[in-house]
Amino acid sequence: MISKLIEKIREKEAPIVVGLDPSIANIPRHIIKNATDEKGETLAAAADAIISYNKAIVDKVYDLVPAVKPQIAMYEQFGVEGMRAFTETVNYCKEKGLIVIGDIKRGDIGSTSLAYAQAHIGKVSFGSASLSAFDEDFCTVNPYLGADGVKPFIEECNKNDRGIFVLVKTSNPSSGDFQDRVLRDEDSTLYETVGIKVNEWAALSMDGAYSNVGAVAGATYPKMGEILRRIMPRSYILVPGYGAQGGTGKDLVPFFNPDGLGAIVNSSRGIIAAYKKDEYKHFGEEGFADAARAAVLDMKKDINDNVFAKRRRV
Amino acid sequence: MISKLIEKIREKEAPIVVGLDPSIANIPRHIIKNATDEKGETLAAAADAIISYNKAIVDKVYDLVPAVKPQIAMYEQFGVEGMRAFTETVNYCKEKGLIVIGDIKRGDIGSTSLAYAQAHIGKVSFGSASLSAFDEDFCTVNPYLGADGVKPFIEECNKNDRGIFVLVKTSNPSSGDFQDRVLRDEDSTLYETVGIKVNEWAALSMDGAYSNVGAVAGATYPKMGEILRRIMPRSYILVPGYGAQGGTGKDLVPFFNPDGLGAIVNSSRGIIAAYKKDEYKHFGEEGFADAARAAVLDMKKDINDNVFAKRRRV
Repeated sequence: MISKLIEKIREKEAPIVVGLDPSIANIPRHIIKNATDEKGETLAAAADAIISYNKAIVDKVYDLVPAVKPQIAMYEQFGVEGMRAFTETVNYCKEKGLIVIGDIKRGDIGSTSLAYAQAHIGKVSFGSASLSAFDEDFCTVNPYLGADGVKPFIEECNKNDRGIFVLVKTSNPSSGDFQDRVLRDEDSTLYETVGIKVNEWAALSMDGAYSNVGAVAGATYPKMGEILRRIMPRSYILVPGYGAQGGTGKDLVPFFNPDGLGAIVNSSRGIIAAYKKDEYKHFGEEGFADAARAAVLDMKKDINDNVFAKRRRV
Repeated sequence: MISKLIEKIREKEAPIVVGLDPSIANIPRHIIKNATDEKGETLAAAADAIISYNKAIVDKVYDLVPAVKPQIAMYEQFGVEGMRAFTETVNYCKEKGLIVIGDIKRGDIGSTSLAYAQAHIGKVSFGSASLSAFDEDFCTVNPYLGADGVKPFIEECNKNDRGIFVLVKTSNPSSGDFQDRVLRDEDSTLYETVGIKVNEWAALSMDGAYSNVGAVAGATYPKMGEILRRIMPRSYILVPGYGAQGGTGKDLVPFFNPDGLGAIVNSSRGIIAAYKKDEYKHFGEEGFADAARAAVLDMKKDINDNVFAKRRRV
């Protein structure tokens, strides 16, 4: 699956993921009104609003980017109806030729991780049937439970040609609480140690020059990104934290390999709520999807100017 | 919320949680047949089978135990329909007076953790409405992202009188991959360091002598349980790993405080699939729920004999 992602990154000349994290506060009022006029202030109406919002944005950006990353929490908060919106979003994005990275951050003991893996990047058996539940192309995985919580995901990668990104160094302010602690016997931090494990796991699911086993490392920590880039040469790095969380184009440089590959950068609010920012306000609330398109184009330019102008182009 | 749990533990004289982890392989064939006769080999039929199975078990054990712990992965694997089964299970258990611990192991950056927290132990705002999504009493939380990934859950605990159990030392064989590493500056392991944080967080949501912020520590690691019991005196420990995973009655002793409180022990397969074990085979497949009841009574006796016979009773 990583080779498919790389192919699409090359084709679109954009190592960019649009984060589909639809918080209600960012959904334009006319979309909310349509939904609540029909179904009232209910979970079902919230789900309908999310679907309309996402589809309008996807329609305006699918030709520009290789992938989207729906953050499942923003759907799960609306219960079963929210999960319906998640499923419809995944399916719609796949119809549009986008690669879908489910930002689910699951991880559990082995038998339970297998259930999550089958739900999101595999199939589940029921009698003689083999059924798809959420069916993303990639998903994110939390490593706190160790190898036996991650390996079922890797097995599903190999069975179904899918991929994962393991959390290594997250973008949030307190990610250092545990991730940055120095391990005595390893003489390296926890995030480096997790990175070393990811590099071992990467060998279990190679797909061309890169592995289906990637990592998450936040744009907000570029020096740590540089270290991780060295530790995990075969792993793609999914880089959140660009834009709204504070990461800039310059911060992205160390996450890429000299071949111009190796990283894909996510922006969520910076794109899907661009219409609220001063620079895109002229699109108006009704023009939110056009504002998102403009923000993607600006992000692409920012990455090209800062990362690729100094290297050869993707 | 922890005081409500303690009250129910005292009332039932059983610090026991029944893990509702319905894997299809353990659901009796007549239940599967009823579901597939009606809906075919579909996600909807799997969900229906899970609901029937759970309700039958709950009907036979709700008078014996204070709480249940549905493992959401076993529902999520069946997609939106599976999440419907999760919701119906949560609601049914609450109707029966059981406390529901959602084993969801969520954790993300702050704004996203808030969405998970509102989904599972809070309410989500939509327009002027305040809506319930999954609405458990407690949920489990993954600490890998640090304080800002955990605190939104604590805030929801305080707002809605709910509780959480933070993963500290998990029951699985490879939990030591990261959790057991020694941190140089702290001169203690990662799991101890997480335990120290849990103890700090516990102070933020006290409810009587104990805190709404508890911890998960596996029965499979009793020595580590003893250490954690000391580090986190105000936190209830949710103890998985008893039974099918290898933990025994004797292993449970160190997880309890001298007051006979402080721990609640989960068993999943050992109870809900008891009918497959030699000792309960005489109940037959149709008698699966009676077998579950017998297994609960035996677990209660095992805990009483090993933990409380040597101390004063709960």
